Amino acid sequence: MTNTAHIANAHHQWQVRVYWEDTDAGGIVFYANYLKFFERARTEWLRTLGLQQAHMQQALGGMFVVSDTSVRYHRPSRLDDALQIYTELVVCGKATLTLKQSAWLDTDLVSEARIRIGWVNSHTLKPTRLPSALLDTLVNAPRT
Amino acid sequence: MTNTAHIANAHHQWQVRVYWEDTDAGGIVFYANYLKFFERARTEWLRTLGLQQAHMQQALGGMFVVSDTSVRYHRPSRLDDALQIYTELVVCGKATLTLKQSAWLDTDLVSEARIRIGWVNSHTLKPTRLPSALLDTLVNAPRT
Amino acid sequence: MTNTAHIANAHHQWQVRVYWEDTDAGGIVFYANYLKFFERARTEWLRTLGLQQAHMQQALGGMFVVSDTSVRYHRPSRLDDALQIYTELVVCGKATLTLKQSAWLDTDLVSEARIRIGWVNSHTLKPTRLPSALLDTLVNAPRT
Amino acid sequence: MTNTAHIANAHHQWQVRVYWEDTDAGGIVFYANYLKFFERARTEWLRTLGLQQAHMQQALGGMFVVSDTSVRYHRPSRLDDALQIYTELVVCGKATLTLKQSAWLDTDLVSEARIRIGWVNSHTLKPTRLPSALLDTLVNAPRT
Repeated sequence: MTNTAHIANAHHQWQVRVYWEDTDAGGIVFYANYLKFFERARTEWLRTLGLQQAHMQQALGGMFVVSDTSVRYHRPSRLDDALQIYTELVVCGKATLTLKQSAWLDTDLVSEARIRIGWVNSHTLKPTRLPSALLDTLVNAPRT
Repeated sequence: MTNTAHIANAHHQWQVRVYWEDTDAGGIVFYANYLKFFERARTEWLRTLGLQQAHMQQALGGMFVVSDTSVRYHRPSRLDDALQIYTELVVCGKATLTLKQSAWLDTDLVSEARIRIGWVNSHTLKPTRLPSALLDTLVNAPRT
Repeated sequence: MTNTAHIANAHHQWQVRVYWEDTDAGGIVFYANYLKFFERARTEWLRTLGLQQAHMQQALGGMFVVSDTSVRYHRPSRLDDALQIYTELVVCGKATLTLKQSAWLDTDLVSEARIRIGWVNSHTLKPTRLPSALLDTLVNAPRT
Repeated sequence: MTNTAHIANAHHQWQVRVYWEDTDAGGIVFYANYLKFFERARTEWLRTLGLQQAHMQQALGGMFVVSDTSVRYHRPSRLDDALQIYTELVVCGKATLTLKQSAWLDTDLVSEARIRIGWVNSHTLKPTRLPSALLDTLVNAPRT
């Protein structure tokens, strides 16, 4: 049913720098902000596949909407840290994607996430099938 | 030219509570977040005038866009503080509003702002005149 | 081992209003921001128990740190929506709490979360047992 | 009184990409977020001078705190835009800095800011003189 078997194992790596805006009064990165870091990394992963979300919204009349996020926070990160974000597409269905993502500080795992994303019509926000051109691009994404 | 003379002196008061999300690693509220507090207070001030921005966007095809912000930060605020936000319309022109806003912790002035806002067409984002019904509501806002 | 059996079933309800800052270019609330809404509601739930986190940090030398978040997004919410946030403590262990939270727009479930929180030393950020006074307060929280 | 005359004209350039988190339901970047972009650019400008704020807080017991921000918003920017942020130190006093910053989309000026920053003791948050080593670094910053 899903194209899991066909998915290229796309481990995308991307760096995020921690700024003041990301921290809280505990002296560490506010946990909700890792979802922003993971979002940025997914956007950059899509960009490496030639997919720009603003263009997709205009050209395809649809957009990705996050439907499920599970995040585990293993250790804190702090101002000025340079985090490496890894993104891997693990399931690519007809209408949803599932990605594994993780944030690392050198060799320490900071946090890891499982994110499920659906494709919806931009106007109605109703779930709909991924356009086939988009699906082809995702399924055939090269190993990196 | 402007309707300054006719403006009711609308000192609107509204409370904002400081949460973790608002603070940074300096242990205090991140300065950019006062713009969010002032925005929320303006939204609530408009709501007291019967103006809901989501409705306005649909009914009038336009929206407010901030064109100028000046903020002075006088003293820090911290987690759990309850700030009083005061909002006053000081200039109401044909296409722009200017508001004075301030944030207080008890009798201490925390920050104060001068915010200029224009009315734009929601689709083109071009500046345009305030719809007359909207202008009437603003100019005739009761003292509070 | 845990005090689950003793937990008062604390369904705390609290309202969050959606402002511009919470939305994104999809026209809906940015999914990561529900974690902020749930955080605010937990803070208010603690406040109803007489627990202020800024005081706790000073008096007890510790703070809560989120270790695990699972959020499901069922339907979008938009500018000006008034969301009801429900918070329920479902597990209270020696060093961690687990809460169920949900966001509702009238009778529609918007999103729901399971949040695990640990207690850490504020300076070392090392996990440590919940102070007994704090634990007593949580375990004996009245039904609401 | 100030060291204005001695300031190297440090036009620092740095790129910011617009992500979903930065936009609002108007379809454009939420105006308060330009303060975040300018903050990130100042942090990177300091980094080019060998100054890391987390280190400074530990080594010098002080930190920068923003005391004044004036921002003018000239035209909107949108999802996926790559903004160029320019940063220039225009006044370097004994205890405060003033910077001019601007955000450009290609040849279009998106927004421009004047930011005043003070140096404070990290614990008391009281304004204090810039440490001389820090002042020297700022005053002698090379043209870029």
